[in-house]
Amino acid sequence: MEISEKSKSEKIMDIATKRGFFYPSAEIYGSKAGFWTYGSLGTKIKHKWENLWRNYFLSLNTNFYEIDDCNIMPKKVFESSGHLKNFNDAMTECEKCHSRFKADQIVEDILKIETGSLKEAELTKLIKENKIKCLNCKGNLSDARFFNIMFGLKVGVTGEDEAFLRPESAQAPYLAFRREFEATRRKLPLGLAVVGKAFRNEISPRQGFFRLREFTQAELQIFFDSEKINEHEKFDEVKNYNLIVYLASDKKLKKISCKEMNEKLKIPKFYVYHMVKFQEFYLNILKIPENRFRFRELDENERAFYNKIHFDIELNLETLGGWKEAAGCHYRTDHDLGGHQKGSGVKLEITIDEEGKSKKVLPHVLELSFGVDRNIWALLDIFFKEEKERTLFAFPPYLAPLDAAVFPLVNKDGLPELSEEIFSDLFKSGFSVFYDSSGSVGRRYRRQDEVGTRFCLTLDYDSLKNKDLTIREVESMKQIRVKINDLNVILKDLLNGEDLSKFGNFI
Amino acid sequence: MEISEKSKSEKIMDIATKRGFFYPSAEIYGSKAGFWTYGSLGTKIKHKWENLWRNYFLSLNTNFYEIDDCNIMPKKVFESSGHLKNFNDAMTECEKCHSRFKADQIVEDILKIETGSLKEAELTKLIKENKIKCLNCKGNLSDARFFNIMFGLKVGVTGEDEAFLRPESAQAPYLAFRREFEATRRKLPLGLAVVGKAFRNEISPRQGFFRLREFTQAELQIFFDSEKINEHEKFDEVKNYNLIVYLASDKKLKKISCKEMNEKLKIPKFYVYHMVKFQEFYLNILKIPENRFRFRELDENERAFYNKIHFDIELNLETLGGWKEAAGCHYRTDHDLGGHQKGSGVKLEITIDEEGKSKKVLPHVLELSFGVDRNIWALLDIFFKEEKERTLFAFPPYLAPLDAAVFPLVNKDGLPELSEEIFSDLFKSGFSVFYDSSGSVGRRYRRQDEVGTRFCLTLDYDSLKNKDLTIREVESMKQIRVKINDLNVILKDLLNGEDLSKFGNFI
Repeated sequence: MEISEKSKSEKIMDIATKRGFFYPSAEIYGSKAGFWTYGSLGTKIKHKWENLWRNYFLSLNTNFYEIDDCNIMPKKVFESSGHLKNFNDAMTECEKCHSRFKADQIVEDILKIETGSLKEAELTKLIKENKIKCLNCKGNLSDARFFNIMFGLKVGVTGEDEAFLRPESAQAPYLAFRREFEATRRKLPLGLAVVGKAFRNEISPRQGFFRLREFTQAELQIFFDSEKINEHEKFDEVKNYNLIVYLASDKKLKKISCKEMNEKLKIPKFYVYHMVKFQEFYLNILKIPENRFRFRELDENERAFYNKIHFDIELNLETLGGWKEAAGCHYRTDHDLGGHQKGSGVKLEITIDEEGKSKKVLPHVLELSFGVDRNIWALLDIFFKEEKERTLFAFPPYLAPLDAAVFPLVNKDGLPELSEEIFSDLFKSGFSVFYDSSGSVGRRYRRQDEVGTRFCLTLDYDSLKNKDLTIREVESMKQIRVKINDLNVILKDLLNGEDLSKFGNFI
Repeated sequence: MEISEKSKSEKIMDIATKRGFFYPSAEIYGSKAGFWTYGSLGTKIKHKWENLWRNYFLSLNTNFYEIDDCNIMPKKVFESSGHLKNFNDAMTECEKCHSRFKADQIVEDILKIETGSLKEAELTKLIKENKIKCLNCKGNLSDARFFNIMFGLKVGVTGEDEAFLRPESAQAPYLAFRREFEATRRKLPLGLAVVGKAFRNEISPRQGFFRLREFTQAELQIFFDSEKINEHEKFDEVKNYNLIVYLASDKKLKKISCKEMNEKLKIPKFYVYHMVKFQEFYLNILKIPENRFRFRELDENERAFYNKIHFDIELNLETLGGWKEAAGCHYRTDHDLGGHQKGSGVKLEITIDEEGKSKKVLPHVLELSFGVDRNIWALLDIFFKEEKERTLFAFPPYLAPLDAAVFPLVNKDGLPELSEEIFSDLFKSGFSVFYDSSGSVGRRYRRQDEVGTRFCLTLDYDSLKNKDLTIREVESMKQIRVKINDLNVILKDLLNGEDLSKFGNFI
């Protein structure tokens, strides 16, 4: 392999933009950092990811549901949630790792002085003169700026009603909790999921597709009785399961059994059980290699003030230089329902039935939070492969944007007609397929490999006689010959993860 | 049936809010007109509608794809699209039918005077003094107000970049056109769909769930060669199909064959073909009764200036007092690509290969546009039924929010255990199911009927002996007895529309 001048990140970005995974939004107008469009291939992979997520997390409990709320929410929501206050400060951002710090706080902590009513310019001056650096990576800090990270807007003709684009999808389930508790089974735990947009006016969104101003979250808020935090009916099933963790206390990567997490580290069973589900989703469903996955515990200074226990799910991404947050498991206590109960004056405490007795509960929340876009980028990073004569994405079969491509070996003698018929049949059966008849078959393979199309189906002269075709798998490049009549069924099995060898001998 | 004081609209709204179809967003803070949350049941029906739409319209052509773009778009996009200019006027709105008029234009047209640089207060005075009424319904007009219907916001720390929430999903495909043409098959027609949010700061959103400030659109933009507007390869297949139309010229409801639409009314074949697909979607897929459906032709004064041919798809909705727009078929010419080409300075003209010759084309656009939320409301209106002892939604089986509910006849003797096992199996197989063991079976039926659950599965003492159960269908209330072992397969067939009688005798 000759040395290439482009970084892996640039190579992936080239493919993504050229082949229709994603490209800058409103690109013809120059575009703006942090806004991206999913193209035709990207939308397929995004939908596949989202549906895998739904199928997995919403089936953890028969009392988990998805809801769908507005992006625009009134100001009062964010007064109660704390977003207005907590993001409404003079901020300084690390120019390297983009960690953001309250400017007055960092100055006070480092210089041991009172900042009182200092303005941004004065805070900036103190930061520069005293060479205060990023607490995480020692990078340079930006000028301090008064900044609320939410996008504000006005609703109504006279603009009298202040509103904001939600900075996290999580608020929707808190606001809907009372309604859904009544509409469903009046039982805890109750899970409410949202797969939808969130918006943050990031100071400097860099890192390409990883830190966006408009992004998609998949979040599940689980409302539960805090008295039962150290219980889960299925805990015994997972007690010997080993979690891959990086603890704040010793900063070492290690495997710890659920039993030990609970008994020695005092992480409650309800939390530990859901850590298992995170890890299973990443390792078993998304097929992330074990050495690329970890839970990182956030210490008290790092986590949001309302998160009592907080592990991030991090993936080791070559394109971004190491471990990056892809998801988070947040024990938010009763911060959210409590805040909204106080702010709205509406009682959010509910009455549940426990062994025949009724009991009043203000539920606590365990949040399972995923950034969809950064997970998509992670898939591209992790499954990208360079070989001598090609690049490919070795996605799990059910995550490839295209299930199959159909090629006639040559463009004559009835082969295009038969190939188009097969293409059309697969298309109508709901497979995501592509037809390509231009250039050599070798070149066509390369084009499909480049976007991770799982299978290439080639029709040749024998196909006309024997009513069969060749199936080639992207990763191994192994091929088998199957009857056209069996194609539909075989393809479905292959996309569910069955091995190619099950359906024929390699040729 | 005793006379009820509640209107049909109120009854549906009661069920919708109580049972988790939808309810006002941020309701605990008093909520704001035009913003709604889809609850656990509503999200299911919305997803089902969206997936039916995708399956139907994206399979019309193998060169149709879905993309997914940002809601926030830079100001320049809307300079080019005309939204900034055209919505940036003193507006007056009919207080009855909510038609909106440019205040200066309506004053000029009626009073035959020049309004020149009159301000809003002066325009309002002229409207009131001269008793100018709504052009459509003679309702009273509101005060004139300077108003852009888009939500504006600022991007970046210093707020230097003006942006807007998109008022229609359509801009995304226009901006992405060049990229997608290159990434896909370099062929016309090319279809780019978006299923996503749009935002309009409506002056006075009333009509409950029908006119929203944040709403979901499902739109397909078809880019085609305008020289071929009177061609469609499948036109002959539909030429005798009868369209249900209400023409601007004679204002009568009638059926007109596609052939006649094309030959006598001079509607181009490419347009007429897609009208058929609209009508088939509503009548065959959504099962809307024929007498509730029509195409209404908009005359020159009603349609947007860039729409050269414009039929709305209207549904007759009792809750809203008559025919209401649910979708639209818009021939937008080259207004969009032309505008963006000019505004961005980027060439959007493409080169296609036609019979071996290359040809430069600035594609025209046919837009198939649907308001998802108003379609959901229409389903509730159309399929709502009141009977002596119950209300129900007689949704098509594949549109019901819940596929089935599982009931043990009594809560003892092993029936709950067996019922829960069946419920759990169905849940794991991906059916959307509900378990209910409280109250009489009659009451449980009513609760499921009320939300349109398609089938109720009841287990009784015979079930323990014979391993079977009763399936009851919501609309006919007919019941059959089936073996538990066959349940999964039978339920799948029933949800695809098979008749209950196929699987057993009515009991």
